[in-house]
Amino acid sequence: MTPAQHTVEAKPLAERARSYFEGLQQKICLALESFESDKKFVEDRWEKADGRNADKSGGGGMSRVLEGGKVIEKGGVLTSTVFGGLPESLALKMNIPPTTYYATGISLIIHPLSPMAPTVHANFRYFEQAHGDSWFGGGIDLTPFYVHEEDIKHFHATLKTACDKINGEYYPRFKKSCDEYFYLKHREEARGVGGLFFDYLRGEQEHYFEFVQTIGDSFLDAYLPIIDRRMNEPWGERERAWQLLRRGRYVEFNLVYDRGTTFGLETKGRIESIFVSLPPKVEWHYNAAPEPGSREARLVEILKSPREWV
Amino acid sequence: MTPAQHTVEAKPLAERARSYFEGLQQKICLALESFESDKKFVEDRWEKADGRNADKSGGGGMSRVLEGGKVIEKGGVLTSTVFGGLPESLALKMNIPPTTYYATGISLIIHPLSPMAPTVHANFRYFEQAHGDSWFGGGIDLTPFYVHEEDIKHFHATLKTACDKINGEYYPRFKKSCDEYFYLKHREEARGVGGLFFDYLRGEQEHYFEFVQTIGDSFLDAYLPIIDRRMNEPWGERERAWQLLRRGRYVEFNLVYDRGTTFGLETKGRIESIFVSLPPKVEWHYNAAPEPGSREARLVEILKSPREWV
Repeated sequence: MTPAQHTVEAKPLAERARSYFEGLQQKICLALESFESDKKFVEDRWEKADGRNADKSGGGGMSRVLEGGKVIEKGGVLTSTVFGGLPESLALKMNIPPTTYYATGISLIIHPLSPMAPTVHANFRYFEQAHGDSWFGGGIDLTPFYVHEEDIKHFHATLKTACDKINGEYYPRFKKSCDEYFYLKHREEARGVGGLFFDYLRGEQEHYFEFVQTIGDSFLDAYLPIIDRRMNEPWGERERAWQLLRRGRYVEFNLVYDRGTTFGLETKGRIESIFVSLPPKVEWHYNAAPEPGSREARLVEILKSPREWV
Repeated sequence: MTPAQHTVEAKPLAERARSYFEGLQQKICLALESFESDKKFVEDRWEKADGRNADKSGGGGMSRVLEGGKVIEKGGVLTSTVFGGLPESLALKMNIPPTTYYATGISLIIHPLSPMAPTVHANFRYFEQAHGDSWFGGGIDLTPFYVHEEDIKHFHATLKTACDKINGEYYPRFKKSCDEYFYLKHREEARGVGGLFFDYLRGEQEHYFEFVQTIGDSFLDAYLPIIDRRMNEPWGERERAWQLLRRGRYVEFNLVYDRGTTFGLETKGRIESIFVSLPPKVEWHYNAAPEPGSREARLVEILKSPREWV
């Protein structure tokens, strides 16, 4: 080990994780901006508190949001590092003792304008408790409006290759967790075509940090080729209407089931950051259902029964 | 008591409540349709099950939905009567023993097209448990996008007059419950300007049934004059954008906090009926906030601090 490496390694893991997430944010925003001619991600730095309030909470973050682009209708790439006392009710839900926590992470959501391009979400986080327990969690998943098998296979194959660099058992395990997690019970449908989901990765922290970095680094490889292929495909009112309707399912999942949203709302997180995941335009209509045999029906069929893509 | 009255009174309360709710649905739909030239409420009768499945659940309902009207962008007036075994988790939340239940009710939501006209919601229900306990619940509340004090005062005054016919203490008590219930903690805002909210009205069942009927019968008097006044007021893109944004709060409340929605989702209720309350078109934008001093800011100011309107 060289002295330079040693210096890096000697920093606490929480700080290294934070620094990795912030670098990833920068890299992803730059790459996504290359699809836009006159829109950039707008930076919004915020601070929660200084840690001197009653529950000792504090922290802050940097939201980078792009709205109204030619390719990205609404996109957010956010990092934040917060700390404080965990509410007892929430600790119970998370099945951990109530204590103070430190959380650093990145989360991103891209809602493309074109219904032919899928929505994507990713989130990676490091969570540490005062008594010393700590873990990594995160995930990445794709939500198409129209089925292009080639895209879905590419997305999953990229994630599998990344997982396999670390441990051959990870892709099947976290792919399955993803199918289970992003599921709307009340609709009996998956949110999308999945990807990876993992949480409470405890124990070998250096190993899991390397894993999270490998997945984080694969995000652009997994998503950009899909955007590239779909952004200029023609679409019309019918496709747009279907996209707006399906986006309603995204809202339903995020507000009814998503743990990140619950965590954010219950810890009085920053609302604008939590809800940046909500699509820009959404519709709900009564008894809306795709015509049997249509391309729209094909999507629903796939969401009803998760499958293996690689 | 005349024999005819006796016959009516001798019917079980559950059946009389159901029959009242169905009559009210008919009356309200007819009155609302008078605002539309070429749209009617479309009837959709559904059945849940016949009571012969594992949890003995069954029942059905009649949804009446109008979409794309000149005045009503999306409106639903629904009655349903369902029975079955209550999931234990839900019984715990409702603070009642797990048992079989019978529930009959009416719920309605009107999302007007014009941002100058307020959204309105009302719900009345009768709930009975196998061991004999039973109660009435319900409410009615107004959600404007622009503040017209005259409208809000009329709405509250009509409800107060109706309450006062039954008991002078009801309006202040149920007005306060309404302010407390329709509150978005994460936004630190009320959903709208309130109305009435009551639940678990146990004990003198004939008295409470009379109360529920009095409030139900006052719905049209409370709401129609407001629609009448506002439907032809001019509005443009700015007002529409504000309405679509504020409708996002409606979705947030219904999916994060609303007990009716939770009850529906957890008892595997009929999704299309539960989600008919969701607005037809909604938007979420990052860091969207009204200009200080604007008419939009005036609404937020009022939602931040509930007040007395009569």
